[in-house]
Amino acid sequence: MKIILPEKDLPKQWYNILGDLPWELPPPIDPLTKKPISLEERNSVFCRELLEQDNSQEKWIDIPQEVREVLTIWRPTPLRRARNLEKHLKTECRIYYKDESCAPAGSFKQNTAIAQAYYFKKAGFKRLTTETGAGQWGSALSFACNEFGLKCRVYMVKISCELKPYREYLMKLWGAEVIPSPSKYTSFGRKILKDTPHTNGSLGISASEAVEEAFKNKDTGYGAASIFNFVNLHQTVIGLELKKQLRLIGDEPAYLIGCVGGGSNFAGLIFPFVKEKINGKEIKFIAVEPYACPSLTKGKYLYDFADSGCFSNLIKMYTLGHNFIPPPIHTTGLRYHGCSPVVSLLKYKNIIEAKAYHQLDVLKAGILFAKLEGILPAVETTYAIKAAIDIAKENKTRNKCIVFNFSGHGYFDLHTYQSFLHQELKNYRYPISKIKLAIKEIEKLQPK
Amino acid sequence: MKIILPEKDLPKQWYNILGDLPWELPPPIDPLTKKPISLEERNSVFCRELLEQDNSQEKWIDIPQEVREVLTIWRPTPLRRARNLEKHLKTECRIYYKDESCAPAGSFKQNTAIAQAYYFKKAGFKRLTTETGAGQWGSALSFACNEFGLKCRVYMVKISCELKPYREYLMKLWGAEVIPSPSKYTSFGRKILKDTPHTNGSLGISASEAVEEAFKNKDTGYGAASIFNFVNLHQTVIGLELKKQLRLIGDEPAYLIGCVGGGSNFAGLIFPFVKEKINGKEIKFIAVEPYACPSLTKGKYLYDFADSGCFSNLIKMYTLGHNFIPPPIHTTGLRYHGCSPVVSLLKYKNIIEAKAYHQLDVLKAGILFAKLEGILPAVETTYAIKAAIDIAKENKTRNKCIVFNFSGHGYFDLHTYQSFLHQELKNYRYPISKIKLAIKEIEKLQPK
Repeated sequence: MKIILPEKDLPKQWYNILGDLPWELPPPIDPLTKKPISLEERNSVFCRELLEQDNSQEKWIDIPQEVREVLTIWRPTPLRRARNLEKHLKTECRIYYKDESCAPAGSFKQNTAIAQAYYFKKAGFKRLTTETGAGQWGSALSFACNEFGLKCRVYMVKISCELKPYREYLMKLWGAEVIPSPSKYTSFGRKILKDTPHTNGSLGISASEAVEEAFKNKDTGYGAASIFNFVNLHQTVIGLELKKQLRLIGDEPAYLIGCVGGGSNFAGLIFPFVKEKINGKEIKFIAVEPYACPSLTKGKYLYDFADSGCFSNLIKMYTLGHNFIPPPIHTTGLRYHGCSPVVSLLKYKNIIEAKAYHQLDVLKAGILFAKLEGILPAVETTYAIKAAIDIAKENKTRNKCIVFNFSGHGYFDLHTYQSFLHQELKNYRYPISKIKLAIKEIEKLQPK
Repeated sequence: MKIILPEKDLPKQWYNILGDLPWELPPPIDPLTKKPISLEERNSVFCRELLEQDNSQEKWIDIPQEVREVLTIWRPTPLRRARNLEKHLKTECRIYYKDESCAPAGSFKQNTAIAQAYYFKKAGFKRLTTETGAGQWGSALSFACNEFGLKCRVYMVKISCELKPYREYLMKLWGAEVIPSPSKYTSFGRKILKDTPHTNGSLGISASEAVEEAFKNKDTGYGAASIFNFVNLHQTVIGLELKKQLRLIGDEPAYLIGCVGGGSNFAGLIFPFVKEKINGKEIKFIAVEPYACPSLTKGKYLYDFADSGCFSNLIKMYTLGHNFIPPPIHTTGLRYHGCSPVVSLLKYKNIIEAKAYHQLDVLKAGILFAKLEGILPAVETTYAIKAAIDIAKENKTRNKCIVFNFSGHGYFDLHTYQSFLHQELKNYRYPISKIKLAIKEIEKLQPK
């Protein structure tokens, strides 16, 4: 069963949770002075309009018509009911999923990619740089840049280039330049190559290279995949559409579930529902992450750098420390040391709950889902699926409405599924001593 | 712009063109006696209900509720308008495409796979065998078998296993067994391996292996990807939905376009419109095929075997001869020596037109489409896209409604696109002497 909205129901405004929360978000601070920094002082890798959105207290922000036009290529996305899965689990719960896999590059990332490319173009930028791990973000931004006539360079984690050649091909097909990272193009990349010539790279390293390049070139902006408030803002089309779709069928969600790396697909899903919970409504928000990279379940709520090269300002978030390098789990998109400040604040205020899983368990759930529902999930998405299944089992006779975000498809993750079926993958223990060490290192960064 | 039908508008009946044509279809004949064969005599790789559908003169055939339930996982499929492409071409034509890429295995093949698996299961079969080239069909049948609890073995053209590992992974994920063909599992495969140990395989060889195995095992059926009347029948959901969608927006098609290998995606698109044309309505049906394998544009309308192992009955169709092996173009799905008997009859009666293109030209059109519309077409689909573009250019100021079948997505064809971008591909001349020879060989098969 699919609940599909007409195009006119694509939201006309994004929902800005910052204008609607009873708490203030701890501001970004300067790493040297430890003082909050003004909009004017924030570094110039973004254009003005994105920075303003990042800081805005307006509850609703208009979506430009040019952005809406591109979004309607695939939006509104269907809300699907996983009836075969329900039957298989013998649960009385209703399990729905918001299918963000219909986007050009196959994931929710496309929502903010389009908006960012639009604003950068409007502000006169000529090109964007960014990082990518699994490739969902890099290909989403490649498409968006092509759509608005910007050049695009993507620093792709070296090991991902090798494991996911199709993602690289897709980016190139849309006109982007793809650079395996670390690379010789940036001083940070050169330093890493000198220190560890055989490194596989990491998302943190790629991000630092992309930011460095944008920082050094006036005509070049930096496309942000996650973390930033404006990214979460652009993703709220997901939750806003979901609200309408559930209203159409007269249902009310008891659980909203999303996988969490930087947190933006989860944010997009839940933000439009958060105020209701603060006002007393019974609804649970479940953020799902890997045991091997458990920022929300085992991290500390501290100020930290967003990237491992320490180019960013300090932001307050649940973090494992920017020097923490997670074990090589196959969900590249969730191998991030921190989590978006707003999602972190909601966790700190007990509005959301976090859950962690091992990769073998979630991949098993993903294959079950693909067999029953016919849609292959991205490996990141399998974390949300596993949580939805567990909740539907726990509530077998309780008739609850469970919705998870189907953040992307797994057509480019078949290598991982194949390795799983061949029993070549393993679980990784929660790397407690490495995390302790990395957190200790950032304690000195905190303001007095 | 998308035109989306509610689930209740999924057709309740298939349209059987055989019950509605003013001409009789030349019947299949026995290769030895050259006499038409009765339903009873037709070999047993199919179940009774499929054979009856293949032969039926009923204009409408009910779609079983169990089949409809599975079809609604992705159907009705959207009709999309390619506005960016229209703008780019500066044409006044309206270009729509019926998006069959939303199916679980990513193509229109899923429509008949579901129906076949259902009927075989109902008839007590335990497993199905089939062949696959590009992998669209093999993965569609794997999903369908998994859905109805049948085992599935897919003979995959050896070179495709190497070029499209992701397709193989997908079939295995859905529980199928994938055998690179030619293989040691069949006597036909062993013969080929003995004669040409280093062969890349071909669709004809794979099909013969699958048919042989089904023929020798009572509990095993053969899943037919194309050619057969019942396959075309199951594909008519495409054209029936399209009719409703065009009616919804008050538009009338001037051109219906599809790529043609065996012909079933084209058949599914146009069959529900054919009677109107016979009755005088102005509408053009354009079948598009590769120059390198030009059965409709350069083949002869003769009796021939459907497979290169000569296991089938003789069927009348446009053919290049069952021994013709086309050059190694990358559109595996269109490398077939013949074309479905009904589509061939319509060509013979001048109801449809055929067009042929070189692979470099269609791939260029496919990349243009992916850049403009954000959806990556299967390489087979790019033939239809190229024809749609050419027609829209020829009719720049004529304000025509052009619809093509977007038969599948190209996420698993990125290897081909990458080779194209690296200029590693070439065009192949129309292989005239090889075709002449292959056609000469089948002239002796004709009934007196």
